[in-house]
Parts: sequence; structure tokens; C-alpha cells
Amino acid sequence: MRERTGLDVFFAPRGVAVVGATPNELKGGYSIIANMLESFAGPVYPVNPGRDEVLGVKCYRSVRELAGKADMAIVFVPAASVPGVLEDCAAAGVKAAVLESGGFAEVGEEGKRIEAACREIAARTGLRLWGPNCTGLVNTDPFIFTPFMRVPNVHERLKPGTLGIIAQSGMLAAGFMLQYVISGYFTVSKACAIGNKMDVDEVEVLRYMSSDPKTKAVVAYLESIVDGRAFLEVTREMAGRKPLVVLKGGRYEESARAALSHTASMAGSDEVVDGALRQSGVIRVDDFQELMNLGKAFSIHPEPFRLSTPGGDCVAVVTVTGGGGVVLTDLLRAAGLKVPALEQRTLDFLRREVFPDWMAPSNPVDIWPAIEQRGFAAFGDSIKAVLADERVDGVILLPFASRMIEYFPFEEIGEAVRESGKAMVSWMFGDLRYFDTMEERLRGFGIPVYNDLHSCVLAMKSYLCFSRKARERDE
Amino acid sequence: MRERTGLDVFFAPRGVAVVGATPNELKGGYSIIANMLESFAGPVYPVNPGRDEVLGVKCYRSVRELAGKADMAIVFVPAASVPGVLEDCAAAGVKAAVLESGGFAEVGEEGKRIEAACREIAARTGLRLWGPNCTGLVNTDPFIFTPFMRVPNVHERLKPGTLGIIAQSGMLAAGFMLQYVISGYFTVSKACAIGNKMDVDEVEVLRYMSSDPKTKAVVAYLESIVDGRAFLEVTREMAGRKPLVVLKGGRYEESARAALSHTASMAGSDEVVDGALRQSGVIRVDDFQELMNLGKAFSIHPEPFRLSTPGGDCVAVVTVTGGGGVVLTDLLRAAGLKVPALEQRTLDFLRREVFPDWMAPSNPVDIWPAIEQRGFAAFGDSIKAVLADERVDGVILLPFASRMIEYFPFEEIGEAVRESGKAMVSWMFGDLRYFDTMEERLRGFGIPVYNDLHSCVLAMKSYLCFSRKARERDE
Repeated sequence: MRERTGLDVFFAPRGVAVVGATPNELKGGYSIIANMLESFAGPVYPVNPGRDEVLGVKCYRSVRELAGKADMAIVFVPAASVPGVLEDCAAAGVKAAVLESGGFAEVGEEGKRIEAACREIAARTGLRLWGPNCTGLVNTDPFIFTPFMRVPNVHERLKPGTLGIIAQSGMLAAGFMLQYVISGYFTVSKACAIGNKMDVDEVEVLRYMSSDPKTKAVVAYLESIVDGRAFLEVTREMAGRKPLVVLKGGRYEESARAALSHTASMAGSDEVVDGALRQSGVIRVDDFQELMNLGKAFSIHPEPFRLSTPGGDCVAVVTVTGGGGVVLTDLLRAAGLKVPALEQRTLDFLRREVFPDWMAPSNPVDIWPAIEQRGFAAFGDSIKAVLADERVDGVILLPFASRMIEYFPFEEIGEAVRESGKAMVSWMFGDLRYFDTMEERLRGFGIPVYNDLHSCVLAMKSYLCFSRKARERDE
Repeated sequence: MRERTGLDVFFAPRGVAVVGATPNELKGGYSIIANMLESFAGPVYPVNPGRDEVLGVKCYRSVRELAGKADMAIVFVPAASVPGVLEDCAAAGVKAAVLESGGFAEVGEEGKRIEAACREIAARTGLRLWGPNCTGLVNTDPFIFTPFMRVPNVHERLKPGTLGIIAQSGMLAAGFMLQYVISGYFTVSKACAIGNKMDVDEVEVLRYMSSDPKTKAVVAYLESIVDGRAFLEVTREMAGRKPLVVLKGGRYEESARAALSHTASMAGSDEVVDGALRQSGVIRVDDFQELMNLGKAFSIHPEPFRLSTPGGDCVAVVTVTGGGGVVLTDLLRAAGLKVPALEQRTLDFLRREVFPDWMAPSNPVDIWPAIEQRGFAAFGDSIKAVLADERVDGVILLPFASRMIEYFPFEEIGEAVRESGKAMVSWMFGDLRYFDTMEERLRGFGIPVYNDLHSCVLAMKSYLCFSRKARERDE
């Protein structure tokens, strides 16, 4: 077996063959070639034996005609034809192939035989394989977008960012995660759908992201972890250095069985998986939405925060709604976080400078009466005081979006957060028309915004958890 | 003490005095009078001793000038002035006053004295009091909207519906819940912010909603339950007849303390509250978003569903994403629901008529390969078969929103759901441009749609829980 090429050729190929390219808009092969022609900076070569040209570009009958031109191939043809295509790739000097077609091990014996043939070719020739049964990969710098979903002007819509995404499931990566990437919920460095993991697997992609300077944090959806020891090794390597969030399906017998039929992989004993993940500082979540919400949190702020308490788990709440403060406190406590009493000097300041006479400050800091009396300056002053409190590791804001947004002390909050080095997360409620402005302003200061309190708590808990790992690492 | 008037006069007054009406757009008294003049069908009388007219309408110096004209008053003046206003109301024959001002028991001793004075007037005169420290109430038929937030053309925007909402917290009711009501997340019959509950309390409002034919389900945010026995009585009365969802803040010491300072009420021992709620069939949630999501579920389908299993807790999943099925199964199991094996005849049908040869059907029913082979008819056929399965009480769909939506068998699904009488909930992912159409179509068949799996599970669990209570009641 020859020395294996690394993953660089997938993320930054010089020339790309698209096998299965077609002008039929109903086919995935159309979306791939259309996206690639529009967005990839280097040469793109349609390959389809039945066409002379595709979308106005010369079409090749076989990858063999592309010797010396393409170093990567995207393959979207029926499974049975794939081994032949891979032989062609190897013969033409192609180093890496992204197999997006389904119909492999997940469909039974015949598929397994095809998969074995592909593996044999890869072992013999050194050709690296990505997939099959997946949407491939996205890199925002340099730009490449392989998924079989049409996204016009995708290179203009996906701004480079620092989040790495790994997903095992094709439809989900294609549909759900891409929906978030494309809608700007976060900006990514690389998004990888690894499918059946015939060759490139989650460990290799994670290792790549771990040492990729453009990737500062990673969120991953996995159905199986093939090599537990190697996985553990890379996650330990990342602990406290790059945040890693994992959604691992198949916790129960019923779901583990479903995972088996879906990507032909054993889910593994969940207790073992869970223990290992926890040990190595991985943040584990249960729903795709949670994974996306932490993707947003760590794409906005991937670095560790300063912790001022020994436990690093103390949260203050600054709220315009007393009721919101009550419910948020319940959720924080239920999540294992503390809602501590504030320092005396903080309370003295709030009582003296911010609160109305009749009102005794406490945590949650309910500032609506102070705002009614003193205007929005009360908000900024409270936040500054609470961030400076050494009993507090992070602050959750509950502001109110309204036409009063112009009086909201964004700059002051941003500066206070930056100076304190502490974590801040914000809820948002009120008038929908002001949500975007509010979110954008706060995001600019490293403050993620969510519409539900549960997500605020999850983001804060994860920020503090990662920051504790970073502190341990430094010690 | 005189016989107390019921709540009808609040929900359907003949004439309304707005005390504290002002043309100053920065004040709540402006929003109230502007909303009322625009949306209330009967006469509205601005009251403000410093004005001759407000928004072009004659302004009165005192409610006393309105004898025989107004039977209800909305009061938004400083707390200290409220007792005088209430004497005026009683003298003018006003039956009910909505007190929206803050500055009562929640602000300390002086506020408590004012509150005592108000109670004394109410006891002596029979005047009913709503609030204080709240946004009042909304009724969609006949229309009345008292909150101190300006919502232009509110009567055209709030379509009559069947959901009742109760909220103790002013800002939340004003901001958060109104945001959902106004954005059409659900349609309501009545929305009630009860604030400090000086007179009208959650039990009386619940009783009213329990016997109100226009209200088919109720969601409530409560910080305190003053009379546990009476509360339990009305919730038992509703159990299995009208769904009741409660978010009760103050589970922990820290949050109970915060609730005390916020609405001057004891939160009560949470174990007692929790046990009582469970016993009487109340569905309890932990976050405002959950409350709103169940509001959506029960506003779309308030009636019980047909259960076919003895446990009434068996859920099937029909999904275009294998990975989504795996994670959803985890969440269903974690929520205490079952994901049963399907009946042999269902499996036989799926194998014979729907699935590709190589694929063995099971629950979750992963239909993407079948759709690829047979088109969207596979979706409709699978759903019909699974709904007819007697081992299944409810079905969660995981469809994909895309330009293929025109091939989606909405009518077929709608008919199958109607015929089976079973609960159905849908996730949504994919292309954002098609979300609204998809949601609207499914909603029309009594199928609520959510963007996260957790909410799908919560809605299904709550549908089945209520349906079991209804079955028990019928037995």
C-alpha cells in the first residue's frame, strides 16, 4: 500500500472533474456542475460519456482524458459504475475522489461488494476516497462547494468563517446544515459530509480541522465512531484549544438499529461513547438545532473566556423582565450552573446609582424599574457592574427589542464585555422588526442571540465548559 | 361585601374609560387609547384632567363624568393616584377596572399600602380589579385589546382563534407572548396578563376559560398559585376536556426568591406544585418557547386524538433523512415515548409496494430511497400505511422543504390523518423559501410544524398525554 495523500487535495484541488455532470436540472449531477462552474476558481471538467458539452463547457467521455489536468474528482453516478470511474481516476493521476452516490454498503450485499472493489482500488493506487452516500465538502477559502444541491452564487453567499462542520448523514448535511450555512446562521471554514466513510473518516477530518489554522471550532454530527481510540486521541488534543461539539445519534437500542441500516455502521455502546466524550472535553448535544446553536456560539466566539470563580460556573442575569429572570434561573440551575449572590460592592453600586429607592438589587438583576426611572443608561451601568463582579463568570442578557433600540447602549456593552473578557449571551424578545439589528449589533461584540432561553443556557454552559478546559490546559 | 360581578364585563364591556390617556407617543397611555380608539367597537372615553381632547376625541377630567357611559376602565396612572381613580369608577357605576400601572406591592411598603386601599374600595363597592402591574387583556371576539404597547390595526391583525393565554408577568405578556400572537404563531380567543392579581387571579380566569365555549385550550405562565386547592379543582375539571399547559417559574430557591421580589407572591413548594399539576392532567413546560410551541400545537388541534395502543404512547417516524430518524428516536425514547416495531402487514405492504428491493422497512420508516425510486407517492403511501398501524398512536414526519414541494402529497396526507384520527407533527428543514407554504398546508390538516426535533417530540408527547386523559375521562 502506498503512502496516503492527506486531505489538502480535497479542500484545495487544482482542477476538478465532475463525473455524472448533466444539463438535466432535475439531477444532482446538474447541481454539482452548475455550482462548481460558477464558484470554483480553477478549471472544472464535466465528464459524461453521453454528452459533448454541459452548460456550454466541453464534456469529456472519461476521466482518463483528463490526465495531468484534474487532481480531484466529484463522482455522482450509479454505484455499480463507480469502481470503473475510480480506475479511470487512478489512471489519470487523480489523487482524490468525492463519492456522492448512494447504493453502497447501506443497501445490502451487492452494495458491499461494490464498496469492497472501491477499497481495493484505493489501496492499490493510493487514490483517496470521500463518502460515498454523502454531499461531500465545502471549503470557503479557497472556495469549493461539492454538494448536489443547486445554490446559485454560492461563493458570494458563503462568507469565510472559522467554524468547521462534520456530518455523517447525507440528507441532513445537504438539507439541514446547509440551510444554516447558506442562511448565514454562522460562517464556516469547512463543512464536511462524510457519509459511509469508506476511506476518509471522522477522525481524519477532525485531525485535519484540529491543525487547520482557519478552523477555530468544530461541530459534528456522527452516527458511528469507528476507531474509538483514535477519536479519543484527537479530541483530547483539541480539548481546551478548539471547542468541539458532538451530536452522536443511536443512544437507544431502537435508534442504534436505525443507524445501522442508515450508514451501515455500528453505533457502539452509548455509555462508553458518552464517558469518552466527556473525559476529553467534548460538548455533547441531543438535537440538530442544539448543534447549530452551539455552532453559532462558537463561530461568533471560539476563544476561551476569562473565568473569575474557582468553579467557573457562575452566571448573572440582567433582565428587563422579572418573569424571564425567574424562568431563566430555573433553567440555569437545572443545567447545573450557579446563579450566585453578587458581591456587596456590586449590590451597593446598583442600589446607589441604578435602582429606584424602593428596590433591592439581587441576581437576577431586574432592571426594568431602573430603566423606567433612568432610561437605558441603567442597562449599560448594570451590565458593567455585573461583569466586574468577581463572583460572576458569565452574564445572560434579557433585553427587549423595540423602537427604543436606538437608545440601547450597544457600544458600552461591547466595550464592557471586551474589557472583562467574560462570556455573554443574549435572549431576544419583543418586536420582530428590530430583531435583526439587535442581533447584528450584539453579534459584533461576540454575543450570540437566541429566541429561546434554553439555547441561551446551553450556549453559556458550553462557553464556560470550554473555558474551564482551557484553564486546565494552561495550568 | 356585595355579590361580585363575573369577568364578562372585562371581556365584553359596553363602554370603556381610558384613564391616563395622552397624545404623548412615548407614554403607555398613548398606546392604550390609540389601540382602543382604533379597534374597540363600542365607545371609548379618554380620561385625563390635563387635556381637553386626545387624538381628536373629547377628553374627560374624571371618570365621574362618565356615569352610565362606561362600565369598564383601563387605568394607567401612577400608583398613588389609583385609589382616587377607583373611587371615581365606583361612583360612576363602572363595574371593572384594568390596572396596568406598576408601583404596587412589588415595590415595597408604600406600594402595599396603596394596594390595601384599592382592595378596600373593591370590597366596599363591588368594583372588580384586574392587575395591577400588567398589560391587561385581549379578547378577539368581541374585540378588545388593552395592552400599553402600540399595535396599529391590531383588530385586523389578530384573527379570532381558540387558544386562551394567561400570563402573570407584564413585560413578558406584553413583549414575548404578544409577539407570538401578533406574528400569527397561533390564533387566540383570549390573552390575559394578570400581574399582581390583587383581585382577579389565575383561578378565576382559568374557570372563565374552562367554561368559555370559544376557548378550546389554555397555556399559562404563572409565578405563584395563591389558592392551590381551587387551582387543582379547576385543572381537574379541565383534565381531558381542554388541554392546559403551564410554565410555573420558581423551581429553585434562587428563582423562588426572584419571583417574590417580582410579583410579591410566594412561589410555593415546587414538589407540591409539580405533583398537583401532574395529578390533574396539566402539561408542564420549562421555557417560554416551549409554552408557545404547545400553544401552537393546541391552537391547531385542541381536540383529543384517537389512541390505538393500551399505553397511548407509541410513535412512528416517517423520514426522508435516516440520520434525522436516528436522532429523533433518541429524543422520543428520552422523553419516555415508545418507537415500536410496526405490524407485520404494515411492513409487508411497505416492502411490497413502497421500498426498493434491497431495503427492509422498519420504524423509523426511512423513505428517501423509495422516493428516489418511485417519487413522492412513496411518501403518501408510507404515511397512510403507518397511520393505519394499530401499534402506532402518533406519527412524526421529517419531510424536506424544496422546490419539489409541488409534488408533495399534501391532500393525501391530510385525508389519511383525518381518517385515522391520529396525532401528527412535522419537522421542517431544507430550503427556507418553501417553509411558509409547507407549514401552511400541513397546518390546514391539523399538523403543527417545528424547526427543531425537540419541539416535535414535546408536541407529540403533549398531544398523546392529553388524549390519554380524554380517554380516561370517557371510561
